[in-house]
Amino acid sequence: MHPRLTTTRAEATVFTMVLTQGPVTRVEIARRSGLSSAAVTKAARPFIEAGYLEELEATERTAPGAGRPASPLTIRANREFFAGVKITDDELIGVITDLRAQPLVSAHRRLTTTSPEGVVEALAELVADLRSDDPAYDERCHWLGLAVSGDVDKALGLVRYSPFLGWRKVPLARLAGEATGLNVTVENDVRSLTVAEQWFGDGVGASSFALVTVGAGIGCGLVANDRVVAGSHGVAGEIGHIPVGGEEPECHCGGRGCVEAIAGTAPIVAAVRAATGDASLTIDAAIDVAHAGNTAAREVFARAGHAIGLGIAAMANLFGPERIIVTGDVQGLAAYDLFEEQINRSFTSQAFGAAADCRLLLRPRTFEQWARGAAAVAIQTLFSSQER
Amino acid sequence: MHPRLTTTRAEATVFTMVLTQGPVTRVEIARRSGLSSAAVTKAARPFIEAGYLEELEATERTAPGAGRPASPLTIRANREFFAGVKITDDELIGVITDLRAQPLVSAHRRLTTTSPEGVVEALAELVADLRSDDPAYDERCHWLGLAVSGDVDKALGLVRYSPFLGWRKVPLARLAGEATGLNVTVENDVRSLTVAEQWFGDGVGASSFALVTVGAGIGCGLVANDRVVAGSHGVAGEIGHIPVGGEEPECHCGGRGCVEAIAGTAPIVAAVRAATGDASLTIDAAIDVAHAGNTAAREVFARAGHAIGLGIAAMANLFGPERIIVTGDVQGLAAYDLFEEQINRSFTSQAFGAAADCRLLLRPRTFEQWARGAAAVAIQTLFSSQER
Repeated sequence: MHPRLTTTRAEATVFTMVLTQGPVTRVEIARRSGLSSAAVTKAARPFIEAGYLEELEATERTAPGAGRPASPLTIRANREFFAGVKITDDELIGVITDLRAQPLVSAHRRLTTTSPEGVVEALAELVADLRSDDPAYDERCHWLGLAVSGDVDKALGLVRYSPFLGWRKVPLARLAGEATGLNVTVENDVRSLTVAEQWFGDGVGASSFALVTVGAGIGCGLVANDRVVAGSHGVAGEIGHIPVGGEEPECHCGGRGCVEAIAGTAPIVAAVRAATGDASLTIDAAIDVAHAGNTAAREVFARAGHAIGLGIAAMANLFGPERIIVTGDVQGLAAYDLFEEQINRSFTSQAFGAAADCRLLLRPRTFEQWARGAAAVAIQTLFSSQER
Repeated sequence: MHPRLTTTRAEATVFTMVLTQGPVTRVEIARRSGLSSAAVTKAARPFIEAGYLEELEATERTAPGAGRPASPLTIRANREFFAGVKITDDELIGVITDLRAQPLVSAHRRLTTTSPEGVVEALAELVADLRSDDPAYDERCHWLGLAVSGDVDKALGLVRYSPFLGWRKVPLARLAGEATGLNVTVENDVRSLTVAEQWFGDGVGASSFALVTVGAGIGCGLVANDRVVAGSHGVAGEIGHIPVGGEEPECHCGGRGCVEAIAGTAPIVAAVRAATGDASLTIDAAIDVAHAGNTAAREVFARAGHAIGLGIAAMANLFGPERIIVTGDVQGLAAYDLFEEQINRSFTSQAFGAAADCRLLLRPRTFEQWARGAAAVAIQTLFSSQER
């Protein structure tokens, strides 16, 4: 194992603050964290010595006569690199990022099989390709983050159940570690994207927020009290199975009236096919038909937006996030303008009291950004004391 | 201000573990907390000196030749006492508890007004009555916890909005502190009960759990990653406003199909009145009619149970709690046998995958136990580092 760099809580606190909120002076770190100045200085030292942090030139004195000027600490973002891969049922999307989880290079690889062995083999080739792009990546990339949809046990590195891949109990961290020689983290894909938002995106500075992903399914990641909600029993964030439709329609999960049974890609396609009489329409064609102004097709999307808005309101009523980030995969985003007005209207009508004040931030995220989420999980695992 | 006793995180960790999980040996505390034995011993010392902790006689040696026997640490529960009061719109319910939040004495007081001044005056009398019950309460009770329904800002001691009391922006902690001379905490009533379960009840040992309260309204408290979810925007736990009914019926909140619009006391009474043709039925009479076997009345309760079960499933799908505790006020509990089967059935049918494994624990809680929750918040505030 690559040794983890932070050994004390103070070290994790200081490094994380510079990483996610820097550049920032030691005085300001002490103020925000409640640590003493001496503790901040002591905690920062090993990171400076190891080249992860550096001092910027002082730009201002804190106060007249206040002694030496305050030099902000900043990350040396290219001190270490991280590989991140999102695994879908037909494709791997990979990136190399710097310490701030900024993608530097990306690549895709079609999958010809979803067997764990086949996927791991393709994964190893993809990661080798990515790392060969720059000698620095080869030298200073020790971690690989993987993002998979389904029930993932991060602590064990285990994919318990992934319906899209047809996997049960696949020890993915071990398999991928053996194939790549890297330290591997495995996390649910929506939670991975949530971690990227928490440390490096629109969640920075929010003690609680929710990320809602609209696409083939409808998912949700939650952060409460500064920590991602992992859920017990392998379930969390299943906003798609809130029964906003009452008794109708039936859902593939066995429930009734689920958001996803109304607003998932499959029911939208089925409803647009029924409305237009064209039984061969794809989702892309359904979106085109609606964009072209077909009223019945537009109503299908509005109904989907209504279900999504009610699901978001239910989540906000229960959970009270400071912010709600709405994103999606490519298809979900292509259709977003067809949903958006109704999502906002239904959210506002169903949000309880002041929960309606919570603004929905629309943030398009490409598959590369989902892969970046996987890398962000590896970064958080390396530097956060909370993960141990 | 009564000085808070814990000044370091280690002290808070050690004391909290003995309080909520003790008696427990120092060795076991070190094992569970990750602190060194020396750190545990150092952290425990001031509490022993101040009389909050004591050593039990050693009952066993940890291992042959392992040195001196391990003496478990335990709480001296009567070292300090806490007052807790639940404020409803027509009554105050107060208790004095020991350090473990066990109620030792309780009293009720009818309210003749809901004005803040009138309530605070009655509160001061009630607390004085309770403390006069034993000289030790007068000597060693420095904290008063208050529980109020509605939007409460605990950090500010402010009731932002309480519809039942008709209060807006009432600085209750300050007013009650001036009237009683005690340190006062103010918290939402459902969150107070959640804190009592977290530290002293069925939540002990669970990193995440949910408490669902069934009564005039339907509420929910959530604990994630060992901390109560307070919510932003003054809203959290509004399980009653999840729209499980689709478009029907309208709810007093402005939403549609809310759990509470189907399963709250008012809609149940209205539906049983409509079903029986008796427009003067109270909720108690409606429960009696259903208990007597009236089919239409029984169906009203079953429909309410269905809505509650769907709401609990939606919460579990989103949040993934380890445990779900279902409780209620007196009326909610009197009717619980009319709801129970349908709650369980609807929860199971709508819970996503393994979320259905989460067992619902039915736990009757009297108003005294809600008052105890208020005291538990004061205890947690005094001893927890997380609250500062």
